[in-house]
This record gives sequence, structure tokens and C-alpha cells, in this order.
Amino acid sequence: MIESTYPKSFASDNHAGVHPAVLQAIADANRGDAPAYGGDRWTAAFEQRVKDVFGDHAEGFAVLNGAGANIVGLSLMLGRYDAVICPADAHIATHEAGAAERLLGVKLITVPTRDGKLRPEDVTGRLGGLGNHHEAQPAVVSISQVTELGTCYSPDEIAALAEAAHAAGLRLHLDGARLANAAAHLGCSLRAITTDAGVDVFSFGGTKNGALAAEAVVVLDPGLTTAVPFLRRQSLQLASKMRFISAQLTALLTDDLWLTNATHANRMARRLADGLTGIPGVSLAYPVQSNAVFATVPAATAQTLLRQFLFHYWDEPTGVVRWMTAFDTEPHHVDDFLTALHKATTS
Amino acid sequence: MIESTYPKSFASDNHAGVHPAVLQAIADANRGDAPAYGGDRWTAAFEQRVKDVFGDHAEGFAVLNGAGANIVGLSLMLGRYDAVICPADAHIATHEAGAAERLLGVKLITVPTRDGKLRPEDVTGRLGGLGNHHEAQPAVVSISQVTELGTCYSPDEIAALAEAAHAAGLRLHLDGARLANAAAHLGCSLRAITTDAGVDVFSFGGTKNGALAAEAVVVLDPGLTTAVPFLRRQSLQLASKMRFISAQLTALLTDDLWLTNATHANRMARRLADGLTGIPGVSLAYPVQSNAVFATVPAATAQTLLRQFLFHYWDEPTGVVRWMTAFDTEPHHVDDFLTALHKATTS
Amino acid sequence: MIESTYPKSFASDNHAGVHPAVLQAIADANRGDAPAYGGDRWTAAFEQRVKDVFGDHAEGFAVLNGAGANIVGLSLMLGRYDAVICPADAHIATHEAGAAERLLGVKLITVPTRDGKLRPEDVTGRLGGLGNHHEAQPAVVSISQVTELGTCYSPDEIAALAEAAHAAGLRLHLDGARLANAAAHLGCSLRAITTDAGVDVFSFGGTKNGALAAEAVVVLDPGLTTAVPFLRRQSLQLASKMRFISAQLTALLTDDLWLTNATHANRMARRLADGLTGIPGVSLAYPVQSNAVFATVPAATAQTLLRQFLFHYWDEPTGVVRWMTAFDTEPHHVDDFLTALHKATTS
Amino acid sequence: MIESTYPKSFASDNHAGVHPAVLQAIADANRGDAPAYGGDRWTAAFEQRVKDVFGDHAEGFAVLNGAGANIVGLSLMLGRYDAVICPADAHIATHEAGAAERLLGVKLITVPTRDGKLRPEDVTGRLGGLGNHHEAQPAVVSISQVTELGTCYSPDEIAALAEAAHAAGLRLHLDGARLANAAAHLGCSLRAITTDAGVDVFSFGGTKNGALAAEAVVVLDPGLTTAVPFLRRQSLQLASKMRFISAQLTALLTDDLWLTNATHANRMARRLADGLTGIPGVSLAYPVQSNAVFATVPAATAQTLLRQFLFHYWDEPTGVVRWMTAFDTEPHHVDDFLTALHKATTS
Repeated sequence: MIESTYPKSFASDNHAGVHPAVLQAIADANRGDAPAYGGDRWTAAFEQRVKDVFGDHAEGFAVLNGAGANIVGLSLMLGRYDAVICPADAHIATHEAGAAERLLGVKLITVPTRDGKLRPEDVTGRLGGLGNHHEAQPAVVSISQVTELGTCYSPDEIAALAEAAHAAGLRLHLDGARLANAAAHLGCSLRAITTDAGVDVFSFGGTKNGALAAEAVVVLDPGLTTAVPFLRRQSLQLASKMRFISAQLTALLTDDLWLTNATHANRMARRLADGLTGIPGVSLAYPVQSNAVFATVPAATAQTLLRQFLFHYWDEPTGVVRWMTAFDTEPHHVDDFLTALHKATTS
Repeated sequence: MIESTYPKSFASDNHAGVHPAVLQAIADANRGDAPAYGGDRWTAAFEQRVKDVFGDHAEGFAVLNGAGANIVGLSLMLGRYDAVICPADAHIATHEAGAAERLLGVKLITVPTRDGKLRPEDVTGRLGGLGNHHEAQPAVVSISQVTELGTCYSPDEIAALAEAAHAAGLRLHLDGARLANAAAHLGCSLRAITTDAGVDVFSFGGTKNGALAAEAVVVLDPGLTTAVPFLRRQSLQLASKMRFISAQLTALLTDDLWLTNATHANRMARRLADGLTGIPGVSLAYPVQSNAVFATVPAATAQTLLRQFLFHYWDEPTGVVRWMTAFDTEPHHVDDFLTALHKATTS
Repeated sequence: MIESTYPKSFASDNHAGVHPAVLQAIADANRGDAPAYGGDRWTAAFEQRVKDVFGDHAEGFAVLNGAGANIVGLSLMLGRYDAVICPADAHIATHEAGAAERLLGVKLITVPTRDGKLRPEDVTGRLGGLGNHHEAQPAVVSISQVTELGTCYSPDEIAALAEAAHAAGLRLHLDGARLANAAAHLGCSLRAITTDAGVDVFSFGGTKNGALAAEAVVVLDPGLTTAVPFLRRQSLQLASKMRFISAQLTALLTDDLWLTNATHANRMARRLADGLTGIPGVSLAYPVQSNAVFATVPAATAQTLLRQFLFHYWDEPTGVVRWMTAFDTEPHHVDDFLTALHKATTS
Repeated sequence: MIESTYPKSFASDNHAGVHPAVLQAIADANRGDAPAYGGDRWTAAFEQRVKDVFGDHAEGFAVLNGAGANIVGLSLMLGRYDAVICPADAHIATHEAGAAERLLGVKLITVPTRDGKLRPEDVTGRLGGLGNHHEAQPAVVSISQVTELGTCYSPDEIAALAEAAHAAGLRLHLDGARLANAAAHLGCSLRAITTDAGVDVFSFGGTKNGALAAEAVVVLDPGLTTAVPFLRRQSLQLASKMRFISAQLTALLTDDLWLTNATHANRMARRLADGLTGIPGVSLAYPVQSNAVFATVPAATAQTLLRQFLFHYWDEPTGVVRWMTAFDTEPHHVDDFLTALHKATTS
């Protein structure tokens, strides 16, 4: 583990650094020349790893960040007058600065949910406009795994959504910025919640899992792959010295480093959640199923804590805060945080 | 220098790896937590370096690649019905997969040139549509320094373009993917060909100069800076673990590493160009003013050479090839290449 | 009045034909040559009428349809990363085929309402993302007058929205496809619910009021007018033989024809609504404040009626239908419809 | 003929009014109610006329103006990273305010021509980037018939372009704003230069031929038709009271009114061109093959003439002016114009 800072940030898994194995992989790729834009052997190795993990027909394309992975992935499946059905708090709808609307010109049909998870009836209930030329046409259902609220879909839940989408002629997209944390929580393979569940296009997030800057767009529908190089290039997501991006992803997909990192981060969130028991006025807002803890906290407590630790309000009016752990969060970080929380509630 | 490969690629400065000092800067930034999206001390240091190099009112914003730098930079200056005047072979017009048109919706008014360089009369001659609501309105002049043909504008030439643009109410954008090579060739400061020449927004390329993946958008017009964070985010050019991008740029801007790297690459190109003298049928297609050598080569010679070395045809019908050198090109790489070229022409 | 058909359609005021005075105005404009694209005297007359009706600083621009008027109007006020706050059932959000998202690249922040009307707190409650570069930035509040549910804002209600919007640096847009019906219902001038209420840009609908195809974009903020000709042209909303569009609008704005037509249509809706009293199972879904009647009707009744008359379900699951009247709806049309409705409920 | 004005404008066929038969057709369509948005019998009649004229598989869609027809037509054939090959002076490239770039996000690859006409080698010579993910991908060839320079393609020339385009996997689009004038000049059917020549999508212009505001998009590739209603709606080109647009087009397509109008306009241009013989310093700039006369005129002559008549410079530096005739240009208009021209050159 890299040298830790004190106090540890609980604001985001993006506040963590780079896992040493990823950094080493970057250094190892720095050997002389390599063709640019993906024609190198590190990229070939990454593409093979994607097939090993997600299936022979899975085609992986390395990109630079999570919003980029979402835009490139969605762009493969959307025509000029199409719409995407997604949860109201989907990252693409709330935190990507309107990129979906501006870069893709797409309408987002946002569905309120109780736990960040879309259900088949949320899809089927929003298809009334199909065929009506006054309405943007739903063409894609987009979900996040882990969701924005830290919850996970079971493989069956994803399969049911895929079935509902496909039955209506729509495709299923999955924002997997924290896919590793979901698989770790569910105790299943990455493939079980993507390929085997009927997802058409998804992203696999590297950055929050320990990479410097590396995400993958994975395409499971062979008819969609020829467009990817063009759309990745046009969408500003193609690295010239691609080998250094590919090498990061290969490192995470080697020896299950992704799983080690995600399992650890999840355990730290669980440790934090368990430690909330008995703290007056503090309660979980959503089930803890990943490396995120959403809790309702008295305003005064939150204020006190925010003077000592980095974290964000999720919804200030209702007092819900979000605490994130990462691959490099240590048990003593959590314990110190809990101690401070105890103290803040009782002072 | 990093371990070299054989044979060295002459296809692109993007085939080179990462300069050791940049890699070290990345490793040095990997210390515990840091706020994401640019709220970290490495980014603050980068922003200060930009001011040191380009002037107190220069605001630097780190992005992920060259096309991204161009799109973010141009987007600051373009309304919905605007056009950009640029050379016909401008990178934004020819090699960014139509990103300017699709992501910005902008019309590119492309001007044929003899050497990749735009002249003031090229601008003034294309303003006839100003005020005519049937025509997209020229709002920006965009040039590349180094140009796509390896040539450089003098500071005065840029200043004259800036004057012509500003006189007509347009702004001047500069694609500085190889700005370092231009300054090295001209023997002037980076500031002399940007800030002091009247440029409004430009990019400073890190990747081709020895970075892993890091470019800067630099804004000299204070009225344009507030939009950058939003447009960078929306244009998929914001790194979450920003410190690792900023650290790369700071490394290049420290102790004039950018100049050392560019000067070396330029010298290797000069060595290559000088070595062409007397090779039958081979001649320079454009003046060598950077790390690019454009040469006219007999078809048979090119074919023979392409079996041994990586490089690209620039214009196959006229037999013009492009040979690029990089910060890590060694004299013996060039000499071996010249030997092979000699042999190919005489065999 | 033009020759009537039987049975009269209650599906839309777009099913009606052209008012004879408008048709005459078109014929009168057909005298020899006139400059194209608006440089003609009929357009000058229209522009003057707009000033007479809406105030000296009101600038009117004729366009071809309602969606065009909305897109052109909104485009004046929206940058690349902006968002519009509007009711969930706003026409721009639901029935313009995603034009706002695709043509403007804008995010629509849709607010559920109980009666189609936005309140100031709906605006102020959605400004939390202002300044956050991860979120599209609210820049415009857009309302419809008459609303999609047939209700009207009072002048004070619009003024309160304008104040809330302006206080936060946003502008107020008004979709006035049925502005005439609102003014007729409220018994106020067109100016009272636009210029005097603080609206920045609005549309004035001619087509539903008796024109063939003619709407106006009216701009009250002088800083926004220079862009209109360019954006109208680019948005495909500029007629070449403009005089025939302008003449239609002038006809409606002459001798208060707009008011005569709207008052009549509203009265017919009122007659229809009054006639519902006592019909078993049939009740008004929303207050009748224009030429629209929204009613809840038993499914069997609706089915029977739909075999005889043209009208649309507004929300089939809840049994809400929409009945529209027009400038050419006659009392006997309404009475016959009511008779059939009576019969359908009791058979 | 409608009452004429004096002096007649030679600036554009858009300066002409509406042909009486078209105006009558509008009045005739004003009978009671009709379903909106094209579900009416006038639209059905128009759709049948399109099949009668262009073939059974031709599907016609009425739109509001020429730029709209081009954008809707092109949008059917263009993906997100596609390019259009077109002449440098194509209307879509020069006079539609950048609509192609902004509304479609498409790159226009503009080809200089000597007479406004594209040749097969202009297409084949611009396909080098096919398959290269750094370049926008040519997907459509777009030509105008009549061209912007008043010249016409023969049926064989169009067929050769279609063949070249199709052989490379591209489609052929034809901007037929003055298609009627071309058929009249060539003495062939409308079908001979569209359907039978291998065009995939084209527009048929009504407005310049005598309509008030009506153009048709005609689709010959059955795989492209389902998208039209959605793209027409979204592109702001759908009239609510559609019957009045359809009726105009049907009027022109009835009893060959389109041909009568175009033939007359062409004859007036021929009369004008013939009358130039012997006028000192005045010569034809391009062959006269439609209702446009391009002539080189001494600057002083043009100045004198512009004080008496409306017309435009096409290229002021070279002294080329454009004189247009219309369906309502009378022989005496032309003769008076020639007299004035004579006088202007000799005074």
C-alpha cells in the first residue's frame, strides 16, 4: 500500500491515489517505441483480458474517464431522435454537466427510484411514446452498477431489465464505474452481471478501483463494434500513447487485483456502517452494498465532522451524507472516523 | 533516457514513451489522498507554472489529449452560428474525426496554404459573409504552431494574424500540440509566440514532448475563463485524479525540460534533413523547422524503407513522406535510418 | 366563418382551417415582387404591429411553427452547458421530438406540477447546482401560457416567476402557442402577461388562432436581438417568401382578430364544460381557463364517443381526455357533442 | 398571371409571388376540419402524386423550406461521424448558415468545381480517409440540380455520380430546389434525373416554382423512410396544418404546372442571355441552362443598373452578377432590363 495520509478522505474513491501495481505497469510499458492510438502490444493484451473475463465476443476499448466511457458507449446505440430511460439520479443525468444532451443530443427520460435501482415496470411504463413522431423514441435503458446510492442489482434483476428492454426493441447499457465493487459485494464474476445478464454495452471502471486514469467500454453486441474507434476518437477519448492506458486496465484485470481492491474497499465501508450502530441520531439511509455508506446525520454532527474530514452531503435538506472508502482505506482510518463521529454526536 | 528500441519509429512523436522525469513526477504525486477534479496542490502548482511562463493573466487548465485541448479551447469562443477560419490541413479539420463539426457544431472555413501557414490576407479575404444571416459567421482564426507541415510562424507573423483577427472582431486560437518545438526552433520564449503575440486561447502540448497524457488549455482573455471548468467537464476532458495530469505538465515546465526535449527532437530532425543531401531522388518538401521532416521520395525507395521502419506517407500521389523525431531519438537512430535510405535508393 | 364540417373535431385547434381574414391577407400580399427573407413591406408592418402591441422595445421575428418558435427563442438565451427549468409536461419536453436536446444540446430540468403551472419555489429549489462544474447550469425558466393543461398564469404569477428567475441570473421564456386564449380568458392585454410581467423572450402563436402557418418570436431583451436572424436561418425557420408569413400575423394583430378568435374558442370550451354538469361519471380534470377541456370520462363512454368524434386521450390510465375548441367551433357543434356524450354515458 | 410590379426583380425567384393556381389550391383546402400533421386527404393526394411522378417506391414528405428539405433529407443518411462530399459552392455549404454542421454535426468536404458540377473523380479522389478513425467518414455525395451556377447535370452525369457513390458505399443526395427548371431545360421527366439516375434522397422545390412555402423530401431507399416523420418533426419542418402545404405541392404536380412555370422562367433567362450579345464588356460567366443568368459586367455598368433593378453580385471581385427569372417574369421585363443594360454600358 502507498503511504497513507491523515486524515483519510471519505469524500470519494477518486481521492485515493494509484495502486502500486498499476503504477508499476505504467513504468513497465515505458520501453522504447510503440505504435500510437492502440496498435501496440499492451493494448492487444488488454483486449485479450477483456475476452478472458467477459467472454469471447466481448470487445474492450480503453478510454480516459468515466463520463467518456458512458458517452462513447451510449453513442453506439443512439440515433438522432432517441431517448434513454435511466434512474433520476443516474450519473449521466446529474453529474456529467449535460454531456449526454449536448454531445449526443439525446433526451434522458429520468425515473424516480427508491434505492437508485430501475425495475422492469419502470421501463415498460415509459414506452407509450414509441412510434409517435412527436416524442423522442426510447432506444436504450441505462443503469449503474453499483448505483449512485451504493446499492447493487442482483444478476437476476439485471437480466429482467435486459429482457424488458430487449422485448421492446431497446438495448441495455450499464455504467460500471464501480462494477468491481458490485461483483465483490455479490460474490459473483464480472461476467455474471454483464455478459450473462444480457447487457449490450457497459463500462468497466478502472480509476476508482486503483488506476490513474483508465476506463473500458465493453461491447457485447458485435454489430456495434465497428463504430467504436470513430466515436471514441471523435468523442475525445482516444489516448495517443494508448499503451499506458491499456497497461493500467490489464494490471487491474490480472490476478484479480480488481477484486482484491474492491473487496477491501467494500469491507471498509461495511466496517464503517457497522460502527454506526448505537450512535444517536445517525442511521443508514440506504443498504450498504459496496464501498459507499449513505447515512442520515444530525446537522450539528455533520458540521463538526466536516471540520475534520473530507466528505460530501448527498442531500443537505434531509441530512443525508455520503462516505466513500477506497482500496487504500485502512481499518484505523475508519475507526478514527467513527471515534470522531461518536464524539461529534455527544458533544 | 529510457531504453531504446530498434529500429526507432519515425512515424510520430507519439510513438515515443514517457520521459523519466515525467514518470517520476507521477510517482511523486502518488502520496495518499488528494481532492479530485483539480482541487489538489499539484494542480495549484501547475496553474502557477502557467502564470510564470505565460504571464500573470494566463490561466491554465489541464486536459487529457490534443483534440480535447482544441475542442475545449475553441468552445470558449464560439457561439451557435459561428465559423472558424483555419488552414486546409489544420489538425482540427483533417484528423480529429469531425469533432469540431459534431461537438461544437461549427463550420470550418478551410484555406489552402503553400506551407501550412495562414496569412492575414487569408483571414481578411474570408470575411465577406460577416453580417449576412445566410452564412455562418467567422468568429475565430485557428492556427497550429508548429504547423501540420512542420513549419513555424515567427512571432511577428502570429502578431499580424492576431491583429487581422482582432480588427475584424475575431479571436485567435493556436493549436500548440508542438508549441515547444516551435519555441526551440525560433529560439524564443513560449510567451513570445502566444501571450506577447496576441493569441487569445491556445493549447500547450505535453504528450508529444514527453508526457504520458497531458495537455494544457491556456486562456489569455479573462472574460473566457469562467466557462472553462464547465466546458472541460462536459467535453469529457476532466480527469478525476487530476493531480497526475497536472504533475506531468509541471514536470515539463520545470527546469525547461520542455525546451531540452524539443531542442533535442528538433536537432535529430535537422540531422536527418541534412543527411538527405545528395541522396538521388530525395528532396525536402517543406523547410525543416521543428521535429518533422517532409521529403519527396521515389515510390520504390519508400516501399523498401517501409519494410524496415515505421513512418507515414503524407501524400502518396506526390510521394511526400513524413518523418518525425522525438525527445528520445538518438543520433545513431537517425544515422541508421539514413544508411538504409541510401541503400534503398541505390539498390 | 368558413364552411363547417360535421362532426367538428375536438382533437386540436390545429384541425381547424384558416380564418378567412388571414387567407385574404395572404392573397392581398400576392402582388408582384417583394424582397425575400423579410426585406419586404408586409414584414415591416408586422414588426411595427409587434411594437404597437407589446411595446416599443419588442422585436418580432416571424417563424414557421410553434416548435420552431420555441427553439429559436430558447437558443438566444442558452450557452453550451446550460439547462432549462420547465414543467414536466412542457411542450418542449414532451411533444417536440427531443428538439431541445438535439438542436440546442440543452438539459431540461423538468418539474412535476399539479396544474401545469410552475411556481417560484420550483425555480429556487432547482438552483443547487449553480456554479458546480459537474452539473448543467440553469439559465432559463420556460413556461407555457396557456399551459399544457389548459390553465392560465395570472400576470402576477408570471411576474413572480420572472422575479425569481432574474434574481438568480436566469431568464424567463414563455411558450405562447395559445397566448391569445390566455389574454382572452384573463381579460387583459397581451402585453400584461409578457412585456409587463418581465418575460424576456416569448412566442406568440398564430396557427392555432386562425393562421395557416405563422408564429412570432418576440424578444424583449435588446441584447438578444442581433442573434435572431442568424439563429432563425440556421434553425430552418426562415421563410424565403416571408411576406406571406408576416401578412398572416399582421392580420391576426389587426382589429383584435386574435382576441375575437380566442374569445370565441374559449366560450365554446366553457359551453362544453358547463354542459358536463350532471353527466354521470364525467368530471373536469383541470379548471377550464382557455379553449381546452380536460375531463375524466369512463372508458366505455370514451370508446363510444371516439367512434363518432375526433379527440385524444391525455392520460389513458386515469381516463383523462382532452377536448379542444377552435375559432370556428359553432355552438351546435358543442351541443351535438354533449348530446352524444349524454347518450354514451347512459347507453 | 398575377398583377406585375415594375421594375421586375432579377434578384431571385424567391422575389416572385405565389402562382394563382397554388393560391386557389390553398383556398380550396380550407374546408372545415382536417387532421393535423399530415393525416389529411390533401396530404394523401400529394403522396400519391409523388408516386405517380417519381415511381411507386418514392415516398414524399412535405416540408417548409429548402434548407429544411436538405437537412431532413441528409439526416436520413448520416451517422455521427460521417461526412458529405459536395461542391464548394453547394447551398448547404455556403448559404444555410452552418445548419449542416450545427444541426447534423456533419463535416462537409467541399470540392472546387469549374461549373458547379461534381464529377465521379471528385468523389473517388476524396475517399482516402475511409476506414481511418482519425477522419470523418464520407457517407453521402450531395449535388444540386440545377447547380448554384445555373448549370444542369445530364441524366447520365447523375447516374455516373450515383454509381461512383454506391460503389464506395456512399449514398447520393440531390438538392432539387430548382429541379423543375432542370427537367424543363433537359427536356426530360423529373424521374429521369432522380429515380432513374440512382439518386437515393432528393428534394423537390416548390417555393421557387410558384408555391408560397412548400418543398418535398423524396426518399427512394425504402430503408430510410421510417425515420422521416421523427426527423422532420425534430428538425422543425412539420406543419401542423399540413393540408395547406401538401395542397401547394399537389397543385404544382397537377397538369404539369411545375413544367409550365419552369419552362417559362427558363425561356425568360434565355431571352435575357440572348440579348447580351453585342453589349460591350458583358459576357456570360456560365452556360445558361435554367432560369439563372450569370454574367460578367463592368463595375460601372453594374452600379448604374443596381440603381434601377434588384439583383445580386455573385462574385464582386471578378464582376460576376446573377440575374434570376421566375414563373411570372414577362418578356417586357426582360426587354426593359436589356434596354437599361445597353444604356448603362454606353453612357
